[in-house]
Amino acid sequence: MAVTASAPVTEVEVHDVRFPTSRRREGSDAMNRDPDYSAAYVVLHTADGGRGHGLCFTIGRGNDLAAAAIRALAPSVTGRPAPATAAGLAALHRDLTHDSQLRWLGPEKGVTHMAAGALVNAAWDLAATRAGLPLWAFLAAMPPEELVSLVDFRHLTDALTPDEALAILRAAAPGREERAARLRAEGYPAYATSPGWLGHDDATLVRLAERAVADGFGQIKLKVGADLGDDLRRLRLVREAVGPEVRIAVDANQRWDVADAVRWTTALAPYRPYWIEEPTSPDDILGHAAVRAGQPVKVATGEHAANRVVFKQLLQARAVDFVQIDAARVAGVNENLAILLLAAKYGVPVCPHAGGVGLCELVQHLAMFDYVAVSGSREGRAIEYVDHLHEHFTDPAVVEGGRYRAPSAPGFSARMKPASVAAYRFPDGPVWRAGGEETAEAGGQETAEAGREGAAE
Amino acid sequence: MAVTASAPVTEVEVHDVRFPTSRRREGSDAMNRDPDYSAAYVVLHTADGGRGHGLCFTIGRGNDLAAAAIRALAPSVTGRPAPATAAGLAALHRDLTHDSQLRWLGPEKGVTHMAAGALVNAAWDLAATRAGLPLWAFLAAMPPEELVSLVDFRHLTDALTPDEALAILRAAAPGREERAARLRAEGYPAYATSPGWLGHDDATLVRLAERAVADGFGQIKLKVGADLGDDLRRLRLVREAVGPEVRIAVDANQRWDVADAVRWTTALAPYRPYWIEEPTSPDDILGHAAVRAGQPVKVATGEHAANRVVFKQLLQARAVDFVQIDAARVAGVNENLAILLLAAKYGVPVCPHAGGVGLCELVQHLAMFDYVAVSGSREGRAIEYVDHLHEHFTDPAVVEGGRYRAPSAPGFSARMKPASVAAYRFPDGPVWRAGGEETAEAGGQETAEAGREGAAE
Repeated sequence: MAVTASAPVTEVEVHDVRFPTSRRREGSDAMNRDPDYSAAYVVLHTADGGRGHGLCFTIGRGNDLAAAAIRALAPSVTGRPAPATAAGLAALHRDLTHDSQLRWLGPEKGVTHMAAGALVNAAWDLAATRAGLPLWAFLAAMPPEELVSLVDFRHLTDALTPDEALAILRAAAPGREERAARLRAEGYPAYATSPGWLGHDDATLVRLAERAVADGFGQIKLKVGADLGDDLRRLRLVREAVGPEVRIAVDANQRWDVADAVRWTTALAPYRPYWIEEPTSPDDILGHAAVRAGQPVKVATGEHAANRVVFKQLLQARAVDFVQIDAARVAGVNENLAILLLAAKYGVPVCPHAGGVGLCELVQHLAMFDYVAVSGSREGRAIEYVDHLHEHFTDPAVVEGGRYRAPSAPGFSARMKPASVAAYRFPDGPVWRAGGEETAEAGGQETAEAGREGAAE
Repeated sequence: MAVTASAPVTEVEVHDVRFPTSRRREGSDAMNRDPDYSAAYVVLHTADGGRGHGLCFTIGRGNDLAAAAIRALAPSVTGRPAPATAAGLAALHRDLTHDSQLRWLGPEKGVTHMAAGALVNAAWDLAATRAGLPLWAFLAAMPPEELVSLVDFRHLTDALTPDEALAILRAAAPGREERAARLRAEGYPAYATSPGWLGHDDATLVRLAERAVADGFGQIKLKVGADLGDDLRRLRLVREAVGPEVRIAVDANQRWDVADAVRWTTALAPYRPYWIEEPTSPDDILGHAAVRAGQPVKVATGEHAANRVVFKQLLQARAVDFVQIDAARVAGVNENLAILLLAAKYGVPVCPHAGGVGLCELVQHLAMFDYVAVSGSREGRAIEYVDHLHEHFTDPAVVEGGRYRAPSAPGFSARMKPASVAAYRFPDGPVWRAGGEETAEAGGQETAEAGREGAAE
């Protein structure tokens, strides 16, 4: 990558944006009864008119704290040249995650770490936009040495050294162009979570599952963990509806202790779940290993794993069959690159978590980059997809025939429509000023309206 | 404990209080160069004039976020009857740690979890004050069944069941009164960290180490991890100064990867360090286990362990020889009770972390309760002590002859002097309004002044 002088970042604009999704019980599961899908949304401004966009995803209360955490970190960004090179992006990531005082609040976990991720991702959006490439292609154009230089190897080297990372990337280098071409032609497999929210009744569940399969999805997901009898009935209904070939993943959202997870998943096993997701605490490496060893269903986790050190251990302990990266929980592209390399080292496929505000838009780039330049494979992999809230983004994720289409617009697809930001800003946007009294239908109409309006910045 | 009707909590008062400790390099170590020891300080007010005090400890920047996190959780406290019973205190702890939307920011980690701890601890201060007992005695007066009811066993039962916890507490019940009497007579061993800050030159280091031993401390601690040559020289100088009997713990503050920790600690081993503290990432259970297995020095950690699930695994993996609880990182008394029970189950001694603003004041109660009613032992144990900032508390920790005196005043010793809060409030208190330009000496004088003033609430 050519080193060019960059204009400085002049402003870090932050908005608390919330969507009243709890009014329809969208997103409901065994641990999250009433999420209002939200984003602490950040826009970096540069002196020469550049813009970089990023976000923390939250589920409502606390979104103000995520916004405050971004503001607390903003002094590390403002006034600095907008990073355009691997060296600049590595330095920004390091400075945001290792502030000598703020790190006490983590270290490298919780809302301050998520905020660092939003800012890092915004810088990547800016850099990729400047380069005229979608983020996945911007990353895939970097030589292996530059990619390795982006990673913070502190606390990782017992599992992955810089030399090992370099070897992984060099091994994947020869096929990059061919895989990028296939990606542009064929897209990347998606799986559908919308059918399986715990708030759906049986008829809705079956109808949406059948529709997802008809739409081309080879995998769907059901929420489980509230009541075993309900779970058995729902899984049986869906299995009967979609037939033996479609993959059905199940997701307990951290609901169980280890013994419960083993007992419950063993009971569900006859319906052949593709994986059990988040069977227990996201901090419990040894617990996941025990669940994996104790029952026949494969184990997936990661959307709440706090950082690369937790992923490292999940892999070292052989605790997971699938690594579920999240674009907006760890400290941005740099830390997710570390996790992709760790997963490649241990030969475990990455199936990203998505579905929240902007998560599909962001994480598709990371999975596609993984295919082109890290693991070199789409085998057994799929990116989560939920069919809502995409209308608020200027470069929304597009899923057709059960596959994500490779983004072609420059950047990280993280830009929200200004009209959406204005309409859903909490607590003063029109959707919230009404006091939460409008119906779900009215909320839906406003969503559609905001989606139509937001063309100009 | 008798169930009595409680007046409701009417206000959650929060202050951002910071002490300019970085001006003297107090608190400096291999990872934290320039801490300004700080507290996000909370006072619960009840309708009948009751007050409960708690705090998040931070090291400067980010203290505003901790205060904001307390405010974000305040609606779960305001309007609710001030909890006075085990049932009430258990319910408050559960509600603060499992808010269905805020938990997305953790779960159970980072600044939101610390904020929950500040509020939980404030409720315990209020309850113990009402009962007319210091917190350690208030806890030690509860029957085993009530103590067990305080614990959130979610994600713990593969290591500790409620029945096992009950058995541990019942086994310790017979000796409670005798041990409480001994505690009041003899106090609890302390160790001194002030001699060993990385910012001290060799002469200061040796002088302070000798003074600590002369003052009766049987254990001191040195910061290590920045430069191996320096560490070898400093450890040798201190070992020669204090002789072979005094315990010298060393603390790397997370600086190393696993291989570095093994190599470095092996090099230090001839000077017989009592333990190596925080050799690597606080999230790295497997890493700590590898460090413990790979070299001869005992391993201690915990001040940055995010929650009881991390402690559970450190114990399950036999990764630590000492559990270092912190009063203000996890979710308050309830979660620390879970950790004390886990440590007792695995037979690992608890040596609390302290030294920050108010941490000595708070954590002494937990170690003393552990001695009286959980582990039943002070053997091999000591509470960290740093001799600064105590003058800002109305019931300061008192260490004499190298031992903490058992607190006798009702409550959790968490109340700061109002004059100190006013003087050090950030950014508008007089110490900070001056723009950080006064000298360390001036700061010290103001500390002393504020300490003299703060008598009335």
